[in-house]
Amino acid sequence: MGLVVQKYGGSSVADAQGIKRVAQRIVATKKAGHDVVVVVSAMGDTTDELTDLAQQVTPLPPPREFDMLLTAGERISMALLAMAIAQLGQVAKSYTGSQAGVLTTSQHGRAKIIDVTPGRIRQALDEGAIAIVAGFQGVSQDTKEITTLGRGGSDTTAVALAASMGADVCEIYTDVDGVFTADPRIVPTARRIPRISYSEMLEMAACGSKILHLRCVEYARRYHIPIHVRSSFSTKIGTWVADPEVVETARRAHVTDTPDPIEEAEMEQPIISGVSHDRTEAKITVVGVPDKVGEAAHIFRTLADAEINIDMIVQNVSGVATGRTDISFSLPRVDGQQAMTSLAKIKDTVGYEQLLYDDRIGKVSLIGAGMRTNPGVAARFFQAISEAGVNIEMISTSEIRVSVVVDEDGVDAAVAAAHHAFDLDATEVEAVVYGGTGR
Amino acid sequence: MGLVVQKYGGSSVADAQGIKRVAQRIVATKKAGHDVVVVVSAMGDTTDELTDLAQQVTPLPPPREFDMLLTAGERISMALLAMAIAQLGQVAKSYTGSQAGVLTTSQHGRAKIIDVTPGRIRQALDEGAIAIVAGFQGVSQDTKEITTLGRGGSDTTAVALAASMGADVCEIYTDVDGVFTADPRIVPTARRIPRISYSEMLEMAACGSKILHLRCVEYARRYHIPIHVRSSFSTKIGTWVADPEVVETARRAHVTDTPDPIEEAEMEQPIISGVSHDRTEAKITVVGVPDKVGEAAHIFRTLADAEINIDMIVQNVSGVATGRTDISFSLPRVDGQQAMTSLAKIKDTVGYEQLLYDDRIGKVSLIGAGMRTNPGVAARFFQAISEAGVNIEMISTSEIRVSVVVDEDGVDAAVAAAHHAFDLDATEVEAVVYGGTGR
Repeated sequence: MGLVVQKYGGSSVADAQGIKRVAQRIVATKKAGHDVVVVVSAMGDTTDELTDLAQQVTPLPPPREFDMLLTAGERISMALLAMAIAQLGQVAKSYTGSQAGVLTTSQHGRAKIIDVTPGRIRQALDEGAIAIVAGFQGVSQDTKEITTLGRGGSDTTAVALAASMGADVCEIYTDVDGVFTADPRIVPTARRIPRISYSEMLEMAACGSKILHLRCVEYARRYHIPIHVRSSFSTKIGTWVADPEVVETARRAHVTDTPDPIEEAEMEQPIISGVSHDRTEAKITVVGVPDKVGEAAHIFRTLADAEINIDMIVQNVSGVATGRTDISFSLPRVDGQQAMTSLAKIKDTVGYEQLLYDDRIGKVSLIGAGMRTNPGVAARFFQAISEAGVNIEMISTSEIRVSVVVDEDGVDAAVAAAHHAFDLDATEVEAVVYGGTGR
Repeated sequence: MGLVVQKYGGSSVADAQGIKRVAQRIVATKKAGHDVVVVVSAMGDTTDELTDLAQQVTPLPPPREFDMLLTAGERISMALLAMAIAQLGQVAKSYTGSQAGVLTTSQHGRAKIIDVTPGRIRQALDEGAIAIVAGFQGVSQDTKEITTLGRGGSDTTAVALAASMGADVCEIYTDVDGVFTADPRIVPTARRIPRISYSEMLEMAACGSKILHLRCVEYARRYHIPIHVRSSFSTKIGTWVADPEVVETARRAHVTDTPDPIEEAEMEQPIISGVSHDRTEAKITVVGVPDKVGEAAHIFRTLADAEINIDMIVQNVSGVATGRTDISFSLPRVDGQQAMTSLAKIKDTVGYEQLLYDDRIGKVSLIGAGMRTNPGVAARFFQAISEAGVNIEMISTSEIRVSVVVDEDGVDAAVAAAHHAFDLDATEVEAVVYGGTGR
């Protein structure tokens, strides 16, 4: 049959009960005839608890040691999960990132996977065992030091392993039933998306959807790995993140729960896949920049040198009388302090008048491959938001996305209005949030 | 200057405060000009908590996975300790047993160290760093699996590392001030022993003293590593476990706190080093064994086949009328059930009459190299115990040890009486038990 990689997040293995439930699910997949590789995160709050311990010792832990500390978390969950599987009569062996051959760059805390050499995992499968691999961690290729991958790391481990082993599907288990057309906490009538293309999912991840990390989706797209996002608390089919031909390949490997091809063919591809939102950005306005060649370049070069990622940029039309203009841009709130400090240093060189900082903003994005060929989508989006009484402060677009920055208090209304305007509402409530721990 | 290996047990690093205190001690040693390698156990109750988690998942965890789980404990403590040292301005790097080159046999849960290849530790020292190594764990030489060393494992890691690196001293930090002439909880006037030979310490460890594990002392003797047992809660000199010439070598390396040579020379070597006791054994009596050649051999071969370690053996003089004899032996209580089951199976073959089991016994041992040349030591020991009103059930002796089995309730009285009879009492109370956690 096929080779299935499954990834379970911290909320799915929050306690002994959760670990046993997940073990049953894994054993069921094995008994269906598949080879199974499991990637697991640290249990529930373990990472927070370890971080707290470190803070008790020092406010500034050395990154190498902080990685060594955090990797204890997956070590615990993976060993317990292997035990729970053994209890059900199957052989399971757990492997650290290093043992599983997850080779990374050497930046502690945000290492990137360079290569995966899964020799020991392959051997475990050949011996009939289920392999359990620690997510979020690896070993640096040059220095042989233990590293962690940063946010979304376990998902990326799973997809990278799936790619290196030629898996037929990478199942990402979480505490919701899949990817929805909007956050169900804001739009209760949000619909589960049965399948979404890599490009659309990338835009969603970039625009605030937390369900899959950007890097993980990029990896999947590059190696044509179908991702199946689903809940570990139910047996429902979730969301397939893949282009149609990739899904077809998975189907031929008899991987369970692939979308029905007839249904898929009959289903009209919607213009819009969903509405994302993001409350993690801030806006900086540089007021009264002299309208001379190179001033904007100077500003953004300064920010680039400080390693600050800019998202959206708006430059006002220069005032004829004053010969000055305002430049606004959005950036991650965590970089706000750093950006303001860097810009303050070039006030005299640039000759701008004032710096304004606003972190009470939110970004709302409309995503859909269909908007390429459907004129008027952006207009309908802006109109819906305006009719909801929300003022648009900034706009940016791509081929398959339109984003606006609005006042933070207007985010919910804007998301709901856009969702409704593009007929995304389900007739009944589909989204359930599972998890005994409330995470 | 010298190379110092320091080992800190779980009670010394029970919380963030303890870790910071230990870090200061390590930095002080480094600042005194020594290279420092630190071996650390898991924090306080971590091992118990992890064991409890495993029990919640399965009553019988696979040994490979149980080792994987437990080794998370030292990973946490060693990373935190390295952070605390960094906080004090020194560079520290933590290493797992595997990274430190601790190569073991492949028996999970009770692996033995085969070799130590401390290339990375040596490199860390060469770079001026303090190396922190996880105790209790290693990697199996043939299968490359993570292993744990079983009871006393961290002490053994420390001594093995000290041996492989040619350290000048191995300091074992604990929550008492050293090795005492008796357990201070039983004999409040017990004296700290300034220096004790490897042979005597081996006998003490074998006779119930918990301060150092047998394997660790054996390792130290084989490689001539002086062990300095002392408290992490005070700066007092503790007990040097080493033969005199080994101490002399350490002194020449300018290792701090070596015993004063003049004091040592002036000090008359006592006949008796101390009194140990052990409440972990049981006694089995095989009643009415036919007095024929090979019957005793059959009994003990059966026990050996069941991998049960016998301690003391007594065979009564055969009754002339009956042609039968009784054989008693002591063994670890944990093996009692298994031994009784094995012996019951050979009842008909051997033709004995009855099996008796008694786990309400205790063993009291007198240890001292001086007894070789002092006749009458055993007689004085037996007399002291008799005068304390305690009945002696079994006796065994070595060149430097006399042990008796008594009723469990008589252990305290026997220890105190023997301690007093050989003038071991201090004039004032020396022993202090430290530790904020009460462990």
